[in-house]
Amino acid sequence: MKMSSKMERCGLSPMRKFNPLANEALSRGIKIYHMNIGQPDVETPAPFYQALRDFADPVVSYAPAPGVPVLLDAVRDYYRGIGVELERSDILPTNGGSEALQMVFATILDDGDEVVIPEPFYPNYHTSVTLAGAKIRPVPTFVEEGYFYADRERVEACINEHTRALFVTNPGNPTGAVLTPEQLRLMLDIAKEHDLFPICDEVYREFVYAGEPLLSGLQFEGYEDNVVVIDSVSKRFSACGARVGVVISKNKAFMAQVMKWVQCRLASPTVEQIASAALYHMDPSYFDAVRDEYRLRRDTCVRKLAEIPGCVCSTPKGAFYVMCALPIDDADKFQTWMLREFDDNGETMMFAPGEPFYGTPGRGRNEIRLAYTINAPDIERAIDILKAAVEAYNKR
Amino acid sequence: MKMSSKMERCGLSPMRKFNPLANEALSRGIKIYHMNIGQPDVETPAPFYQALRDFADPVVSYAPAPGVPVLLDAVRDYYRGIGVELERSDILPTNGGSEALQMVFATILDDGDEVVIPEPFYPNYHTSVTLAGAKIRPVPTFVEEGYFYADRERVEACINEHTRALFVTNPGNPTGAVLTPEQLRLMLDIAKEHDLFPICDEVYREFVYAGEPLLSGLQFEGYEDNVVVIDSVSKRFSACGARVGVVISKNKAFMAQVMKWVQCRLASPTVEQIASAALYHMDPSYFDAVRDEYRLRRDTCVRKLAEIPGCVCSTPKGAFYVMCALPIDDADKFQTWMLREFDDNGETMMFAPGEPFYGTPGRGRNEIRLAYTINAPDIERAIDILKAAVEAYNKR
Repeated sequence: MKMSSKMERCGLSPMRKFNPLANEALSRGIKIYHMNIGQPDVETPAPFYQALRDFADPVVSYAPAPGVPVLLDAVRDYYRGIGVELERSDILPTNGGSEALQMVFATILDDGDEVVIPEPFYPNYHTSVTLAGAKIRPVPTFVEEGYFYADRERVEACINEHTRALFVTNPGNPTGAVLTPEQLRLMLDIAKEHDLFPICDEVYREFVYAGEPLLSGLQFEGYEDNVVVIDSVSKRFSACGARVGVVISKNKAFMAQVMKWVQCRLASPTVEQIASAALYHMDPSYFDAVRDEYRLRRDTCVRKLAEIPGCVCSTPKGAFYVMCALPIDDADKFQTWMLREFDDNGETMMFAPGEPFYGTPGRGRNEIRLAYTINAPDIERAIDILKAAVEAYNKR
Repeated sequence: MKMSSKMERCGLSPMRKFNPLANEALSRGIKIYHMNIGQPDVETPAPFYQALRDFADPVVSYAPAPGVPVLLDAVRDYYRGIGVELERSDILPTNGGSEALQMVFATILDDGDEVVIPEPFYPNYHTSVTLAGAKIRPVPTFVEEGYFYADRERVEACINEHTRALFVTNPGNPTGAVLTPEQLRLMLDIAKEHDLFPICDEVYREFVYAGEPLLSGLQFEGYEDNVVVIDSVSKRFSACGARVGVVISKNKAFMAQVMKWVQCRLASPTVEQIASAALYHMDPSYFDAVRDEYRLRRDTCVRKLAEIPGCVCSTPKGAFYVMCALPIDDADKFQTWMLREFDDNGETMMFAPGEPFYGTPGRGRNEIRLAYTINAPDIERAIDILKAAVEAYNKR
């Protein structure tokens, strides 16, 4: 039976595709350190659980398609805290940031259209863009330059008559690159001048380690018709399993089109929306402790990677990933081997292979993405295992 | 800014698009009887709430992309109860039956492809099919024939070289039509002979009122490579707000492609999956009381509609909707007028206008769909209001 050619052009998630091999390794008694997936180990704040316990409607009924008011208002309060005034109708709750991506791309892209995205990028962008019939035009960046891309000439070289959007992940996944306010304004300017949507994926907004406040695309005046922000409770509040995100835009025509997708899938989960609203009311001091912990982990990660001969990485400024190049032929083969044939005292580790993070064919094959979402001692051990594995792999 | 031409071909949900007008009416103090939306008033079973209270993982982490094992096993147990043996990997949990539709259509449809669906059909099929780049080829049915469509000649007349799937909603929404086992087998035979996926939307499976057990497409042998079933806890357990559905298929190649969508949006909500698992363990006797209540409502609905001169309907055999034709020019205008200008002692009512349920241009304009998901006395009152409104509307 014939399948969709668009779906056939998509791949499995590099974060999840090795799970069957991991399960086999586990069944052989191997312990696995997971640095492949951005699943924080930070405890989800108590108000989430309290909201689950307090839910007492006799019927678990559909939420309103445009979202549960208590969540909309919690999101407004959060944005008011960074100086952004939103109407309820500027916000649409989604099934996680992932569905926000799907609905935004489905809303603006036609067959043959293009989205300009700096590479390396989060691989699921590729799936969402491809299923909308369009393709990604990558802006190449390089580890040696700290994954820098906010340059007019580089970005405009990727814009053509098919371009519909300029995608900015800030802080970046997988690079940890963070735009200065001036750099972000440049990206918004380029988008506006070319009549594009600047789509700002800001799910890692609270995770910046140099002390400076990170600006949102919504904080700049004069771009209201263009800016689309994707946000989520997943990483910010360590509530990935809640699957609650939002699309935010002040462009009414855009939001009217998004509403068709929203109504087509009726609503996001009722209880999860209510429980997520409670998260948005966490005191900002909550982030201080979380940020300190991630900074420690980042520093641990970078220090340990430097112990692997031939490993090249750039210290991430934000989010909780580090991308690095290893002295290996192919990270996909290397991961398979690490799960099937390798162990260090009964232990191995997982990363996300780098190639799916690139849009340019051939790039990233010897690169990996590590998520520093496990504690610092575990990171030390995991990277020691990685070092031993690189040596053993190259001696085969 | 240009939007997707595919999205522009989609419409808002006829069940939800009048909500802004309804809010205006409410703010004028008007009471509204809601027969526009299939939101059951039946209490959600207690085990769902117990599971919410019991959830105590310190982190609300991502569920496995292929689903939480306790839910997969609960679904297997439920299907074992109707004689269908499933592997865990035959089942993929979704964000409601709606996302199941999106992912199935995105998996099998290319631009220019067609899906054969008897009309009238659930309007959100149109959105999901259109966003996948394809279109619906409707099999016309008629109220006077009880919306009969299980006829080889009629169905085959709609199949051509672009056809990829034969869609069967059983019991039907909005018609309440129910296929006999022989009729369902005929549909499966036609699909298999033409190398199509028979997609069986069976979310209303437990709601059949003549006492006969309703067969699932999964209960027929020899169609394992073809059959795709869409199911959901929403209606069955009155848990619409949980947004938990499943795609079920024994076709491994199909499920491998669906997995790309699944991994792209990471997972369905963790807590909702666990709580929904508890629902699947309800004793089958639970449905007896629910079914008796809906049968009473159906009978009330049909009896009251017969009191409206010129109203034509067919007694639904299943689900909880009735489609009927009214002696009016345009149900969309009529609903707008009922919300803006009409009231009967300070009360009005809502239905879903019929036109978006049809794929054939011009059909359904004077038809409406009523959901009998409110109690019998309220149904009596709502249809009295409808009758008064038809008279007043035609006298304007």
